[in-house]
Amino acid sequence: MNTTSLNNLLKSVAKGKISVKDAAKKLAHISFEDIDYAHIDHNRSLRKGFPEVIFGQGKNTDQIIGIMERMILHENIILVTRIGKKKAGKVISSFDDAVYHSDAKMIIWGKNKTPKQGKGMILVISAGTSDIPVAKEAYLTAKAIGNDVEAVFDVGVAGIHRLFDHKDLIEKASVLIVVAGMEGALPSVIAGMTGSPVIAVPTSTGYGTSFSGLTALFAMLNSCSSNVAVVNIDNGFGAGYMASAINRI
Amino acid sequence: MNTTSLNNLLKSVAKGKISVKDAAKKLAHISFEDIDYAHIDHNRSLRKGFPEVIFGQGKNTDQIIGIMERMILHENIILVTRIGKKKAGKVISSFDDAVYHSDAKMIIWGKNKTPKQGKGMILVISAGTSDIPVAKEAYLTAKAIGNDVEAVFDVGVAGIHRLFDHKDLIEKASVLIVVAGMEGALPSVIAGMTGSPVIAVPTSTGYGTSFSGLTALFAMLNSCSSNVAVVNIDNGFGAGYMASAINRI
Amino acid sequence: MNTTSLNNLLKSVAKGKISVKDAAKKLAHISFEDIDYAHIDHNRSLRKGFPEVIFGQGKNTDQIIGIMERMILHENIILVTRIGKKKAGKVISSFDDAVYHSDAKMIIWGKNKTPKQGKGMILVISAGTSDIPVAKEAYLTAKAIGNDVEAVFDVGVAGIHRLFDHKDLIEKASVLIVVAGMEGALPSVIAGMTGSPVIAVPTSTGYGTSFSGLTALFAMLNSCSSNVAVVNIDNGFGAGYMASAINRI
Amino acid sequence: MNTTSLNNLLKSVAKGKISVKDAAKKLAHISFEDIDYAHIDHNRSLRKGFPEVIFGQGKNTDQIIGIMERMILHENIILVTRIGKKKAGKVISSFDDAVYHSDAKMIIWGKNKTPKQGKGMILVISAGTSDIPVAKEAYLTAKAIGNDVEAVFDVGVAGIHRLFDHKDLIEKASVLIVVAGMEGALPSVIAGMTGSPVIAVPTSTGYGTSFSGLTALFAMLNSCSSNVAVVNIDNGFGAGYMASAINRI
Amino acid sequence: MNTTSLNNLLKSVAKGKISVKDAAKKLAHISFEDIDYAHIDHNRSLRKGFPEVIFGQGKNTDQIIGIMERMILHENIILVTRIGKKKAGKVISSFDDAVYHSDAKMIIWGKNKTPKQGKGMILVISAGTSDIPVAKEAYLTAKAIGNDVEAVFDVGVAGIHRLFDHKDLIEKASVLIVVAGMEGALPSVIAGMTGSPVIAVPTSTGYGTSFSGLTALFAMLNSCSSNVAVVNIDNGFGAGYMASAINRI
Amino acid sequence: MNTTSLNNLLKSVAKGKISVKDAAKKLAHISFEDIDYAHIDHNRSLRKGFPEVIFGQGKNTDQIIGIMERMILHENIILVTRIGKKKAGKVISSFDDAVYHSDAKMIIWGKNKTPKQGKGMILVISAGTSDIPVAKEAYLTAKAIGNDVEAVFDVGVAGIHRLFDHKDLIEKASVLIVVAGMEGALPSVIAGMTGSPVIAVPTSTGYGTSFSGLTALFAMLNSCSSNVAVVNIDNGFGAGYMASAINRI
Amino acid sequence: MNTTSLNNLLKSVAKGKISVKDAAKKLAHISFEDIDYAHIDHNRSLRKGFPEVIFGQGKNTDQIIGIMERMILHENIILVTRIGKKKAGKVISSFDDAVYHSDAKMIIWGKNKTPKQGKGMILVISAGTSDIPVAKEAYLTAKAIGNDVEAVFDVGVAGIHRLFDHKDLIEKASVLIVVAGMEGALPSVIAGMTGSPVIAVPTSTGYGTSFSGLTALFAMLNSCSSNVAVVNIDNGFGAGYMASAINRI
Amino acid sequence: MNTTSLNNLLKSVAKGKISVKDAAKKLAHISFEDIDYAHIDHNRSLRKGFPEVIFGQGKNTDQIIGIMERMILHENIILVTRIGKKKAGKVISSFDDAVYHSDAKMIIWGKNKTPKQGKGMILVISAGTSDIPVAKEAYLTAKAIGNDVEAVFDVGVAGIHRLFDHKDLIEKASVLIVVAGMEGALPSVIAGMTGSPVIAVPTSTGYGTSFSGLTALFAMLNSCSSNVAVVNIDNGFGAGYMASAINRI
Repeated sequence: MNTTSLNNLLKSVAKGKISVKDAAKKLAHISFEDIDYAHIDHNRSLRKGFPEVIFGQGKNTDQIIGIMERMILHENIILVTRIGKKKAGKVISSFDDAVYHSDAKMIIWGKNKTPKQGKGMILVISAGTSDIPVAKEAYLTAKAIGNDVEAVFDVGVAGIHRLFDHKDLIEKASVLIVVAGMEGALPSVIAGMTGSPVIAVPTSTGYGTSFSGLTALFAMLNSCSSNVAVVNIDNGFGAGYMASAINRI
Repeated sequence: MNTTSLNNLLKSVAKGKISVKDAAKKLAHISFEDIDYAHIDHNRSLRKGFPEVIFGQGKNTDQIIGIMERMILHENIILVTRIGKKKAGKVISSFDDAVYHSDAKMIIWGKNKTPKQGKGMILVISAGTSDIPVAKEAYLTAKAIGNDVEAVFDVGVAGIHRLFDHKDLIEKASVLIVVAGMEGALPSVIAGMTGSPVIAVPTSTGYGTSFSGLTALFAMLNSCSSNVAVVNIDNGFGAGYMASAINRI
Repeated sequence: MNTTSLNNLLKSVAKGKISVKDAAKKLAHISFEDIDYAHIDHNRSLRKGFPEVIFGQGKNTDQIIGIMERMILHENIILVTRIGKKKAGKVISSFDDAVYHSDAKMIIWGKNKTPKQGKGMILVISAGTSDIPVAKEAYLTAKAIGNDVEAVFDVGVAGIHRLFDHKDLIEKASVLIVVAGMEGALPSVIAGMTGSPVIAVPTSTGYGTSFSGLTALFAMLNSCSSNVAVVNIDNGFGAGYMASAINRI
Repeated sequence: MNTTSLNNLLKSVAKGKISVKDAAKKLAHISFEDIDYAHIDHNRSLRKGFPEVIFGQGKNTDQIIGIMERMILHENIILVTRIGKKKAGKVISSFDDAVYHSDAKMIIWGKNKTPKQGKGMILVISAGTSDIPVAKEAYLTAKAIGNDVEAVFDVGVAGIHRLFDHKDLIEKASVLIVVAGMEGALPSVIAGMTGSPVIAVPTSTGYGTSFSGLTALFAMLNSCSSNVAVVNIDNGFGAGYMASAINRI
Repeated sequence: MNTTSLNNLLKSVAKGKISVKDAAKKLAHISFEDIDYAHIDHNRSLRKGFPEVIFGQGKNTDQIIGIMERMILHENIILVTRIGKKKAGKVISSFDDAVYHSDAKMIIWGKNKTPKQGKGMILVISAGTSDIPVAKEAYLTAKAIGNDVEAVFDVGVAGIHRLFDHKDLIEKASVLIVVAGMEGALPSVIAGMTGSPVIAVPTSTGYGTSFSGLTALFAMLNSCSSNVAVVNIDNGFGAGYMASAINRI
Repeated sequence: MNTTSLNNLLKSVAKGKISVKDAAKKLAHISFEDIDYAHIDHNRSLRKGFPEVIFGQGKNTDQIIGIMERMILHENIILVTRIGKKKAGKVISSFDDAVYHSDAKMIIWGKNKTPKQGKGMILVISAGTSDIPVAKEAYLTAKAIGNDVEAVFDVGVAGIHRLFDHKDLIEKASVLIVVAGMEGALPSVIAGMTGSPVIAVPTSTGYGTSFSGLTALFAMLNSCSSNVAVVNIDNGFGAGYMASAINRI
Repeated sequence: MNTTSLNNLLKSVAKGKISVKDAAKKLAHISFEDIDYAHIDHNRSLRKGFPEVIFGQGKNTDQIIGIMERMILHENIILVTRIGKKKAGKVISSFDDAVYHSDAKMIIWGKNKTPKQGKGMILVISAGTSDIPVAKEAYLTAKAIGNDVEAVFDVGVAGIHRLFDHKDLIEKASVLIVVAGMEGALPSVIAGMTGSPVIAVPTSTGYGTSFSGLTALFAMLNSCSSNVAVVNIDNGFGAGYMASAINRI
Repeated sequence: MNTTSLNNLLKSVAKGKISVKDAAKKLAHISFEDIDYAHIDHNRSLRKGFPEVIFGQGKNTDQIIGIMERMILHENIILVTRIGKKKAGKVISSFDDAVYHSDAKMIIWGKNKTPKQGKGMILVISAGTSDIPVAKEAYLTAKAIGNDVEAVFDVGVAGIHRLFDHKDLIEKASVLIVVAGMEGALPSVIAGMTGSPVIAVPTSTGYGTSFSGLTALFAMLNSCSSNVAVVNIDNGFGAGYMASAINRI
């Protein structure tokens, strides 16, 4: 339930269009809904400014569709993350206005475009070609929540001059999301070029001692720049969400 | 070198009080200064909005005093973190206006109080008595940089009702710093109560499988709330600095 | 061999229906039986109150059927855990009264319903949709052993209010099984709401630094609530069994 | 605040000895008390059946005494765990009726002996001489909470016959606490001899690949007996507390 | 080249049947042979008493057949370990007298039965049904090298009485190989029952914190019995080989 | 109780010097003795051929002396391992015939020299100067148990020619103990030079990625020679004991 | 862009064949080229002496072909590493002069043979049959960059005499690449035989405690020979590249 | 024994100043010398171009002095690494010409300055003030072996412009040693600026997830620049030695 739906309901009560008893029932109901395999938290939009996001991994198609069917009655936008091509195909065929972004493994369903909520610009930078899917997930998430987002891909620290070509963009951004695997050095270098907050996202790109992203994660936590905080490995969604929360202050 | 010093220098040039050649030399000089064991980055205040901070651990008293002596010529405020009682005693006896905060193991030197820079309020919450030193480091850092900061200590998840007494403060904060050791569950619970960004700080409090803070760190990275990003174990300073960067947008 | 079978055998001896020599042989025989790839422990029901459970993983269909064929002569109930759909199909087609529970990957064979053994109610609570299979394994195990069991699924700590709706159930339970992946914070919060023993079950739900359940496991071992003990990752069966052992005291 | 204190207060209200307003204030006050470095949870005895326990490690003497001074007004018994000889000396000299148990590193303060709460007998068994301190912590905790407790020390699996001499005691116990370091095999063997619940406590005894107790911990989590659940390394207190919670059902 | 072949060659030289020059060339040649992807060490039988064993994993069928074709000219017995059913089928179809043991994933080729070399009896004991393949690998290896071997499968520590039925066999053995996964406790218990050397083999049986055999490995290295030494996880071959080396002294 | 003491007791019974009743009591008593902090296993000499060894680490001086006082009545030899200089001083001053070997941190008490039990020669080889203490512990243990032992110290793999000077000794030994820290490569190389069993002992020598001996341990477990088995890090005693068990077959 | 192309361009400018404006545009363009999923660094040949190498893993066929199409305009040689048979087939069918080396999983495209750049000989040595693919990757890389390279495969430390047959080659090499899995001991032994620099490459060959190459990696980092430096697990390409950089000094 | 000593000896033989028999004895003797706790490898200077270096850690003062006394007879230079102030004081008081460098924890003894052996310049760069001791160890080692060495300290990646001021030096160096702790990003950035080989040295500088240098080590092994190889944590000596080996080709 978003703020508009809530206001409309309350106005209906004020105008006598709906009885207090019915409104109460409706409100109680929307608090959360129990559909056997999930407690859907319909109040989340009110409490946190954005509806619950469906984490696709580990849920089957029926569960995802079931949850979406309930949410669709109350929300303007729904995100499904970490969903493969095959499963996504079944899901989007059940809903008009649902689009699958295969590079980010994400479904976005939306009746209308989310109105702009964030004030500044969020910049997504990624280190290598293999980091692009995670960067795209962050990009689409931040965009869906209503932010102005820009992106620069494939600027590793081994060719540091490639990075300096984007200096203006870096200084202009109010929040930065920096995505890197392997040695995870990019956030340190970029955070040294700006005073704005940097959300660092380690990726599982690499082999051997990259330990599926652990090395990048630990490198980022040890950044010698202090305007850096870190999210879980490959968590593009979380980075986009956190950057939005920052940009909305 | 802070913005005021820079402006004054440039005005002197404009008024002919100092020759262009001398000003150039001075500016070149201040870019950074090499004092054998350290490259001091005097331009950092200009570039990032706050001077370099001296990480006390692994530096001896002479090195710390030497760096401070150079910085003091250009800056309004200097922080020294992770410095024990004994070493701190020698350092503060060399500088007027330097104060040691033993609970946070931190020296703050400042000619004047930093003017308020952050817009909202930063709230520091910590889980247990043993987490207080790290929480204090975050608190003092954010305050020193010019933010409005409040703090609540010792509210663990095992007595969740203790937390709800602080609900208003939690909703009012524009950025939250949540400090916890052991199972590190507090940031998840608090981030579920607000839409504002939460900086989670794991501490090395605990024993056995707390792994000196690793368990708390990993738990925080796996938070089921998405408005959470994490800094290194016991990194109260980093959390305070990151929260300031966010609050200043 | 359960207590009833034993009593019957002894009564037959008493009544002279079976010679002492034959009874001795039978008893010696049932102590355990060696069928090439397994020593079946027929005395376990007598010693521990419940027959040996067949751990399906790593055994082939023939081995499972072979073991069941021997056990069926002496027991009232047989559980097979961690058995996939395909293997389970072959097994249940060999035995009447065998039912496969696909969500818990478990076969339950039983001539009669197990009589109620536990005194209080065992409550199974799980954190997310992906944790349900493990929770179901715990639920079915506790039920099969003869306990009164109830269950609540999908109540994560990020929406702590969802938990409070189940406060009465939590206070009523004499033993609780709490199942969670990711940051594994749920057992701490629930154990803080009751004085009853909580068996915490970490699950391998999550990605990146969830380390296939290790983070949840360590978080649970570090619980700031002390009425918590932990079993192996994804060990729903063990939790159900341990909860039964507690409930039977 | 224990149940007796609460009842007395309410009786005073009933008899008009204390005004409703004053009683309310008092009750609100006792909910918890904020003493700068700690939120003392005075309601815990009511909610969980035993007052909060003071974890000595990481707290200084002043903090411990300060917390005890407040608790002593409301409680019949106070435990301080993980407190060294020197710190303990200062603490017990401040309170009559406080006794230090150096082998378990524990202070017990109590006005009266706790009345018997647990129904059966709790048996503490430990594997080696070096495991005795942890076993003693478990023993004293369970005893202080009001249980009938017995103990057998130094019965390792390398001399399995030593264990069988205690078979009767093992079968008689309603809950068992088994303490072992190194390979941590003892809980599996003992749990195979009884149907009662076993709380396994790994200790940091050992060297090299004992990994300060991790090997014992993991071995216990992999026990081939299912009536076993595990607490953190060296957590004798937690085991004693959990065993009490079980014994009280 | 085994001792017989060598003696024959030297006798031919002595009798003038082969020229010194040709014999020298032949001997030089047999020292080792380079076949592009492998240096075959034909002297190993002489030096170590048993020819090189072909580790099948990571070698393709052509490589295995190629190596066998050269070895067959000089040796009486050849072992190929860790070879799957499909690859093994191709290999044994190329050689008469080659037999595939699918339970141990091993090919044994032999012209004649190896003469008895070891003096005492080697006993292989394994803990669970899933440990049998590794135990079989140890059994077949020790047998192939010319030892008297016996085996007992599926005797876990949770039913310690099952073990005591084999007490005589345990005391009779001159070397013991004990195979166990999960908590790896069996070698400690068995080594406590005998003074003979015990080779402990951890297996990757288990899940969660069994860490694919690491927990069993570390438990075995921490055995409180001292007549225990350990080989790599699932290394049944190594255990059989080491036991033979011991039995041959 | 060693075999001689047992025989003497039984002869006394046979000759009527001691009543059957008294002998029984004595035998029952010697099975094991409970002295509060330890169960002393007096039957171990009979069962395993050597009395229990006192692991000094984690026991205080009084405990060690207490255990020795009881053992001394039944045994010919007593070993105390891992005991520092200071603690050892107190212990040896309480017993005649007790000698402290500071390089191996070991006390040996013996009425008479142990008669030769092992048949062949045991060779101890160590890699670096820092590995000598562990090598000495192995050397003294094997010697004390009654073996013919030789030793070669400081022969690392980086100067492989130094190793070849000891080729004859290596080939002559019936069991080898190879002690190495850092990369732990020595056992592989030596095991390749002989067909006899090699007990590999990793040491905690090294820094950084030596991980206090873990790297050496894992390298040894991965030895490409198969006549190698491994004991715990720094476990010189265990290696000496295991080598004796092998040498006695 | 290689040095020849650059010189030609500049000569054209000098001779007036191309306008300064056009040359500038061309040069600016070649600095790097942005093709959506990759920033191609055309200046790398100038800066580092060899063009960027395409890491095939994690890139799809279209991306690899796209990058090659741009690079081919400026470079004489292109390497694609870590590319499987199937993907490689599609790629080489798009380019004349592209060859796939399946044993090294590598595509080499080249108009002309690279002129000899390195001065001495690079020797690649590998320990086992399974290490050959990584050794081949190193071999082909060093060769492609223009070095004189030789190779010896399958010389493990368990048959140290096999190694000595190659002593002359080892002493002759100016740089050595030593490839080994399992216990990773080979680089230490070889580095002890020469004063030249040794690049050690751990491989993921092995099982159990080989930890997919980690044990070999750590062993190599702990080499008791000091003329050893290490690259990532299975990183044959990196070793070949680094050896070339050394050989070119 | 260095080349000069060897030549002199051989000339004496040629000139009849020393009998062949005596020379042989002397040469045999110098091969290596066994002084109880050490095999001194006097041939190392001949074989590897530099005498054995004494690793001070884990050796006592007497052992160090004993080894030096023997080496001094044959060598021109001796290095002792990882030796603390106190132990070093005793050692240097025993030898003229021995100097202790406390910042690098290193003793250098030398009769004459080592003649220049390396051809190019070796550049040592370190990231932070706390990394200086390790950088100094590398610097002094490379210098002692006879190289032209330069150094730049304290140039972290968070102020990347500080690094560019040293661009000329970086391009001029024929080998680079880059020393960094925390996130270990510096070698990647520097290796991207040059085609010369870079030896990366991780340091144990940092806290929390720096894991005493492991994070820096793994980051360096994952460098996206390929002209990088890595040595053990804090191994400044090894880096200096390896760089010398490279510079001497």
